[in-house]
Amino acid sequence: MRAEIIAVGSELLLGQITNTNAKFISARLAEIGIDAYYQTVVGDNPDRLEEVIDIAQNRADLIIFSGGLGPTKDDLTKETIAKKLNGSLEMNIEALTSIEEYFNRTGRVMTENNKKQALVLADSMVLINRNGMAPGMAIEKKGLHYILLPGPPHELEPMFEKEAIPYLLGALGKQEVIASKVLKFYGIGEAELEFRVQSVLEKQSNPTVAPLASPDSVILRLTAKASSIEEAYKLIDPVEKEIRSLVGEFIYGTDDDTLSSKAAELLMKNQLTLAAAESLTAGRFMAELANEPGISASLKGGVVVYNEQTKMEQLGIHKALLEEHGVVSPECAAALARNVKQKFGSDIGIGLTGAAGPDPHDGKPMGTVWIGLALKDDEVKTFKLNLSGTRNANRSRAAQFALYYLINEISSYE
Amino acid sequence: MRAEIIAVGSELLLGQITNTNAKFISARLAEIGIDAYYQTVVGDNPDRLEEVIDIAQNRADLIIFSGGLGPTKDDLTKETIAKKLNGSLEMNIEALTSIEEYFNRTGRVMTENNKKQALVLADSMVLINRNGMAPGMAIEKKGLHYILLPGPPHELEPMFEKEAIPYLLGALGKQEVIASKVLKFYGIGEAELEFRVQSVLEKQSNPTVAPLASPDSVILRLTAKASSIEEAYKLIDPVEKEIRSLVGEFIYGTDDDTLSSKAAELLMKNQLTLAAAESLTAGRFMAELANEPGISASLKGGVVVYNEQTKMEQLGIHKALLEEHGVVSPECAAALARNVKQKFGSDIGIGLTGAAGPDPHDGKPMGTVWIGLALKDDEVKTFKLNLSGTRNANRSRAAQFALYYLINEISSYE
Repeated sequence: MRAEIIAVGSELLLGQITNTNAKFISARLAEIGIDAYYQTVVGDNPDRLEEVIDIAQNRADLIIFSGGLGPTKDDLTKETIAKKLNGSLEMNIEALTSIEEYFNRTGRVMTENNKKQALVLADSMVLINRNGMAPGMAIEKKGLHYILLPGPPHELEPMFEKEAIPYLLGALGKQEVIASKVLKFYGIGEAELEFRVQSVLEKQSNPTVAPLASPDSVILRLTAKASSIEEAYKLIDPVEKEIRSLVGEFIYGTDDDTLSSKAAELLMKNQLTLAAAESLTAGRFMAELANEPGISASLKGGVVVYNEQTKMEQLGIHKALLEEHGVVSPECAAALARNVKQKFGSDIGIGLTGAAGPDPHDGKPMGTVWIGLALKDDEVKTFKLNLSGTRNANRSRAAQFALYYLINEISSYE
Repeated sequence: MRAEIIAVGSELLLGQITNTNAKFISARLAEIGIDAYYQTVVGDNPDRLEEVIDIAQNRADLIIFSGGLGPTKDDLTKETIAKKLNGSLEMNIEALTSIEEYFNRTGRVMTENNKKQALVLADSMVLINRNGMAPGMAIEKKGLHYILLPGPPHELEPMFEKEAIPYLLGALGKQEVIASKVLKFYGIGEAELEFRVQSVLEKQSNPTVAPLASPDSVILRLTAKASSIEEAYKLIDPVEKEIRSLVGEFIYGTDDDTLSSKAAELLMKNQLTLAAAESLTAGRFMAELANEPGISASLKGGVVVYNEQTKMEQLGIHKALLEEHGVVSPECAAALARNVKQKFGSDIGIGLTGAAGPDPHDGKPMGTVWIGLALKDDEVKTFKLNLSGTRNANRSRAAQFALYYLINEISSYE
């Protein structure tokens, strides 16, 4: 099945927004084995949209549209497609009811043009919109499949996952469901990860194992096809175990976990309190951790000590220590962690110090970072990083590594 | 002139990257009065690329390509275009020299396929690549203009600004240059801003005045065309003054300024030191400010006091104050600011407290934030925000508003 993705919207052609829908849809299509051959963007202009549909009908078996399903007179996607397919639009009662309920719920007044959103292509399968008003549609005509999706990504993405993918699997003649599990890594690069799990990557078939790197982390997405979700996860399980046996120490979580959500979850589950002393990160570590609701049960607070004077005055770091070892040292990181733990009366103390850049700091090259972890039983561990990014990438990485070390430490208690 | 933007790259069709180049190019084209009618993405496949070029030749006067100029055998954009135009490729000596210099400078070994990058379309204008190896090209054939750009955005963007736009202005028959100035706003929404500067927007012609909103701020981009850069800025000046007279209090900076860069610049210029006490933001304000190199001269540090106990123990906030007014109050924000200023011996103290969400906090609804600003002469100002975002959007906004109030305060000293 050859797919073309057509985004409709003048705001895309004016450069006001980026076509992230095309990326999202393409990635999900690849996962179920459908190749996207073209992505096209056209404005809110029915003549040009018709021409674009003509072209797509000649080169694709599956045409996926995003945008142009809204209530305004610019929104002409389904009207134009109805015309091209010699079809008609009909009022969908479920969609209309859901739109009316939305207006009742929010107390806003429903205008006549909002009803237009409940019009769907006759004989199409209606795709439910859980996050907005305009329903999507899927229809097959003369061997070609057409899928119409709303433009806003927060409406399009869940509709594509929950409604369009099952339709496509059916269209592909597959009595199958798809299940995915994402393993999230930190502290390991993409190349190194691929090298270490080479044996798994080489023999993959079902589940497929796809590495995906972002600037800050690497994930492996395991995707299995089976007759039921349960069967699919049964196929994923042994492969996940094999990966964990090879590189488990770099896996900090799965699926929607983030470094901060995982660290917060472990702190709260283990009823541990935490305080931090931050130099180069200047509060970023604590701010990240405080992304998580409920963290006030564990995060007591901490101190930002951005220069030598405040390190001494606010946290009692000895002048002799700084003179002997410097501020960018394991001794300083350990003292920051130990002293902030004591000052705040927390179970765990974390200290971050380093040379963020752009210049060397205290004789240490840019990117040198020391992280101290003062633990419950008065043990202190220190970790060294040699980062190679820009100033702020280094600061962000340092905070993330501190979360990662914290996760590894608390995980080991379990 | 009708433009089509064609991005070449299988990684786009696999959903591995987003086509941000199309957005960038479209926005810049709109600015110089060229309408983009289509954006197309095609893979690294010469046959399909040829077909896409056929279609574009029938519906556009200007075709802009991104990607496929690199050294690997997948990179076939210029070869395919040369074939379509019955043209040839020739070695460009300047580009070759620049590639050789790059390898010498970085100490890497240049392989034969890197020379391929210096091949350009015969009779084309070569567009210099300041951030990479592959040069761009511009050529006119049979009344159509073709512009070839490298794929990586950090190479494409400056090349487009500095090389392609002058070429296009020439092609449009304009003996003109373009100059832009961006005015950056905070604390005002897009609709409100447009309403207040309506008189300017209505009579705009040269310079054009374009509002652009992001989730966090609004900008106005003033773009003038003139015979020289100096003349263009002379056209911009009076319009900028008029805008400042209408909404100057919301303008925190221009062009590349950010809230943190502007706040840091003002602190350092006025030799002021700062300390902060953060509750809901948990370090985010200080971490933002510390984005700026050299800030250690001004940012002494501060305290994250994430619960009532630490507010009392670490900053001496009186229990009676918290009992009478609560933690989400102007009294608490003022006390945080005053006490952290004293504790760190800084010129300015800032206190942030509020209900980030998802739940109300201390009886105050989610989104209620108080910011205290303790100033040099022992005056304390407090500011209230009623934010309506998610938990973390509220925390981010609170930190940004604190920077914005700080900028306004220090600016008033000048």
